[in-house]
Amino acid sequence: MDTLERQIRFLLELDKQKEIGRQTYLADGSRKEGDAEHAWHMAIMAFVLADYANEKIDVLKTIKMALLHDVVEIDAGDTYAYDTEGNKTKREREERAADRIYGMLPKAQQEEYRALWEEFEAMETPEAKFANALDRVQPMLLNDASDGKSWREHGIRKEQVLNRNGRTKEGSEALWDYVLGLVEKNVKKGNIAE
Amino acid sequence: MDTLERQIRFLLELDKQKEIGRQTYLADGSRKEGDAEHAWHMAIMAFVLADYANEKIDVLKTIKMALLHDVVEIDAGDTYAYDTEGNKTKREREERAADRIYGMLPKAQQEEYRALWEEFEAMETPEAKFANALDRVQPMLLNDASDGKSWREHGIRKEQVLNRNGRTKEGSEALWDYVLGLVEKNVKKGNIAE
Repeated sequence: MDTLERQIRFLLELDKQKEIGRQTYLADGSRKEGDAEHAWHMAIMAFVLADYANEKIDVLKTIKMALLHDVVEIDAGDTYAYDTEGNKTKREREERAADRIYGMLPKAQQEEYRALWEEFEAMETPEAKFANALDRVQPMLLNDASDGKSWREHGIRKEQVLNRNGRTKEGSEALWDYVLGLVEKNVKKGNIAE
Repeated sequence: MDTLERQIRFLLELDKQKEIGRQTYLADGSRKEGDAEHAWHMAIMAFVLADYANEKIDVLKTIKMALLHDVVEIDAGDTYAYDTEGNKTKREREERAADRIYGMLPKAQQEEYRALWEEFEAMETPEAKFANALDRVQPMLLNDASDGKSWREHGIRKEQVLNRNGRTKEGSEALWDYVLGLVEKNVKKGNIAE
């Protein structure tokens, strides 16, 4: 198969990500968002909010990470942040998915994108720390905008939100401060349980 | 209002783009896709297919263009490619939308993103030509994958598809050739009218 044909098959495979649902509601609470919508939103945040990263970041690399970070969910599904059982097997399910999906590409791209995903997961570089912060801040913004709809439906407690967002400060002190403000506001409103 | 607060309000405003529907079906034909999903897909194509641009492109700039190119549709709505009446007023409706939406941002970002959109629309730079090619190729791939569902529903003719895609070759000769192959294949299958 020629190079372009392989790339197009990969791009069509990615289309499935549009059908993977998340637990977060849109800002207006009308429906839950999908994986592709979340990745689009995160990628825009990566350049609009780049100045708030703790360390200097390569914006292009961070955007690619954001756009591709959930590709593995095509096979592995979305594991809800507060699903303890699901999170035990998440890594193994996602490794297999990465092998299959990135394996559709020509070798150089296969290696580049797979490495980007590994880097995102390892959360050690400035880009990975910032992208992970955005991955957590994006649903925080939507949950706050929808008056805590998803938090209330799942009976989420303050301690869970803080644990989930704890590493946000490694990517961005400024966004972490902002998130703390949202948490306090939503605990007061009863959207997050004490 | 401080800078971060303005940026977050802009990001929440963009959330509305997830609710703007397009005429193109997902690859499996199960439902039509939304604006944010289309922009996400296009942005990934911008780096996966960058080598096929006729001229050397700034990939980061092209991705930003792709991610933001339909933001104006939050106010102006999606104008279907083959809607002749709608296309007469499209520009004016979109100008007003750009004023309002980009106007929510701090001045430097307001100017940068507004200029990127104007550049995309003017289709003169290498990045704008390539991004416009992707904007046309992305729905071609999905229409082909869904066995021409949207083309058949709208009774689209070969001449219309070729007109719509005519400028794709200014961005990428290789993708234009690929599109021509898809058109012939779908004319033969009766998905596109002769």
